[in-house]
Amino acid sequence: MLFCNKDRIQNKIETFATFGDAGHGGITRFSLSEEALQARAEFVKRMKKVGVETITDDMANMYAILPGTEANLPRIVMASHCDSVRNGGNYDGILGVITAMEVVETIAIEKIPHRHPIVAMIWTNEEGSLYAPAMMSSGVICGMFDKAKMLESKSSKGKTFGEALQQSGYVGDIASRLNSRDYMVMLELHIEQGPVLEAENKQIGVVEGVVGMVNYRIKTYGQADHAGTTPMPYRKDALLAAASALKYLHEELDKLDSNLVYTTGEIICHPCVHTVIPDFVDFSLDARHQDPEVIKQVVKIIKNMPKEFDKCEVKYQEAWARDTIKFNEELVDLVQSSADAYGYTSKKMYSGAGHDAQYVASVIPTTMIFVPSKDGHSHCEPEFTSVEECLRGINVVLQTVLEIDKK
Amino acid sequence: MLFCNKDRIQNKIETFATFGDAGHGGITRFSLSEEALQARAEFVKRMKKVGVETITDDMANMYAILPGTEANLPRIVMASHCDSVRNGGNYDGILGVITAMEVVETIAIEKIPHRHPIVAMIWTNEEGSLYAPAMMSSGVICGMFDKAKMLESKSSKGKTFGEALQQSGYVGDIASRLNSRDYMVMLELHIEQGPVLEAENKQIGVVEGVVGMVNYRIKTYGQADHAGTTPMPYRKDALLAAASALKYLHEELDKLDSNLVYTTGEIICHPCVHTVIPDFVDFSLDARHQDPEVIKQVVKIIKNMPKEFDKCEVKYQEAWARDTIKFNEELVDLVQSSADAYGYTSKKMYSGAGHDAQYVASVIPTTMIFVPSKDGHSHCEPEFTSVEECLRGINVVLQTVLEIDKK
Repeated sequence: MLFCNKDRIQNKIETFATFGDAGHGGITRFSLSEEALQARAEFVKRMKKVGVETITDDMANMYAILPGTEANLPRIVMASHCDSVRNGGNYDGILGVITAMEVVETIAIEKIPHRHPIVAMIWTNEEGSLYAPAMMSSGVICGMFDKAKMLESKSSKGKTFGEALQQSGYVGDIASRLNSRDYMVMLELHIEQGPVLEAENKQIGVVEGVVGMVNYRIKTYGQADHAGTTPMPYRKDALLAAASALKYLHEELDKLDSNLVYTTGEIICHPCVHTVIPDFVDFSLDARHQDPEVIKQVVKIIKNMPKEFDKCEVKYQEAWARDTIKFNEELVDLVQSSADAYGYTSKKMYSGAGHDAQYVASVIPTTMIFVPSKDGHSHCEPEFTSVEECLRGINVVLQTVLEIDKK
Repeated sequence: MLFCNKDRIQNKIETFATFGDAGHGGITRFSLSEEALQARAEFVKRMKKVGVETITDDMANMYAILPGTEANLPRIVMASHCDSVRNGGNYDGILGVITAMEVVETIAIEKIPHRHPIVAMIWTNEEGSLYAPAMMSSGVICGMFDKAKMLESKSSKGKTFGEALQQSGYVGDIASRLNSRDYMVMLELHIEQGPVLEAENKQIGVVEGVVGMVNYRIKTYGQADHAGTTPMPYRKDALLAAASALKYLHEELDKLDSNLVYTTGEIICHPCVHTVIPDFVDFSLDARHQDPEVIKQVVKIIKNMPKEFDKCEVKYQEAWARDTIKFNEELVDLVQSSADAYGYTSKKMYSGAGHDAQYVASVIPTTMIFVPSKDGHSHCEPEFTSVEECLRGINVVLQTVLEIDKK
């Protein structure tokens, strides 16, 4: 078996952690920010050091292309993103970029024979932290989003994504975009962002797809009145009604399949003053499961919810939904056999979070590899995956790339 | 029986409604704002028209003093405030000022004999909308608040109350403050701000005091995790726990005395993102009752609440509390007999809301008179009390003042 280099991985983790270092263990590295441009420059420099040139496309996605021995074969690409959420950690996204670099470096330095070009790639603006939406560039390239609209996406400070793109110096040719003619498969290694691998003591997550989801808003309508002067029987308290609706939904949804995850994470209360009875509350319900039938049961529960709680009208509204994405089965099997070949313990699983890979899956065969997240943390500074755990995942990617190369 | 003048009252309601008119039936008239200064100028002008001069004290409280026939007798004062909340109505506060003016005008114009000086008064900054806290000037004068601290109270735009006070042109002598030597009693007419008088078809609220209250913060502590990647059994959802705690408290508090009013009006959720499990929620609990024993039962329920809901720790914290204020019994009886003398239907009641009168009650004998609030609305544009209902309340104040004058 071939192995990547632990020290080199450790060095990359530590180096990239300096770009946007927030001073307490994590980073804030918004897409196309100065910090993100530092990370991009480091990527170019390190790839150049092993003789690999980087090109970019019109969305500033970066492709470091290590040529193969046979002409005109399509490329095998490993990709992720180098941007973070505010006060994010040192693994989400960047570990997939480090993986891609490490595999390219290993193959280049060890002079491992390979027929196809092998590409380390960075997707621009996966988090959408500064310029919504998330997965912006993969969405544009895979036909989910309109580029012109994306260029107008504004940060809270009023700068557009288009302006940031031009100022970045990384805008390349539209012809350089990942496409189904020049690219053969895409692999993305990512931290799990959940506690399952750690809890079940598994080293590799063999990702079968990305779960489908629905997102609803539940709204309750009461009557704003004075907290001191309105006897209880005259009240219509929208927050009490929202608490009742939330408890009702949790109780009903808990009866569904145990793999269902659902979250009531956001609540808006009006007027939200301690001396006024609330007249309006709006909370979110996000539900995810790989089986569309279970999602249908979730929607049924929402639609069959009582129309009134605590004398307040209750309404629901679908905010958005996405279908389950299934990754390429052959690739999933290749990842599984690569993990097995190293003797790593593994678990087949669905991603509960969204990734660029889910859009790319509609263009070329795609799959993902997960490594454990300590305590399940992600999108926060305590994010952690040990370098040993990283190495295992990166080895699996290396092996999978070399297996694909044989085809 | 003597009567005030309905048309004159109507004219005052309409005129004062123009100062801060927000264009859709209500006003925004923050204390010492340009709009409030217009209202003050109108007060001075109207009082001058009936030969009454206005003085101010160091907090810009205004006193229009109609002399009595006997020298050195203490003054009978009728007072309220002319400031409003944002998008407030045309009755809260200002109706008490209109009452004071109308009674002074009636006595002056009709040349009704009276021994004591009779004073129409405006309290500065009762709402505390721009400069917290509420009831600021009565609090300063009655020894509840430190004046120096109050002068530093800042609006959201960074202006201090002290600056606004100096710029108002209404700062007078500290010796002019309402005090227990120069002032005999204070009466304040106010809209009920609740639905009880209207629902029970009563014309006059004979106010016996202001209910005591406690204000608690209830806090739940969970664990922030990714909505898509964290299986349900691993979750500690602080919003679910808050909903459980809120429902528990409502169920327990509903078992107490039916005159108890309590409100969970404010909720803060962190991080309040639809894709993240909430790790912290903080909601308010405001409870009011005239009987301190009932308030003690409320506190007992809060303190005996389970320490954990839905695997989340639950804590409580007293934010503040106030004891029940009982108004002067002799004055309350005088108001009752005045209402009876006119043949008005009436109800003895406690004020659930705070008023300047509750602070003044610690300095001189004080009481309040309520008139009905349509649909119980207050602190909002639909606030309404018909001029006939206002007239009845103002007549009761006139009669009560004249009865006090005999003593």
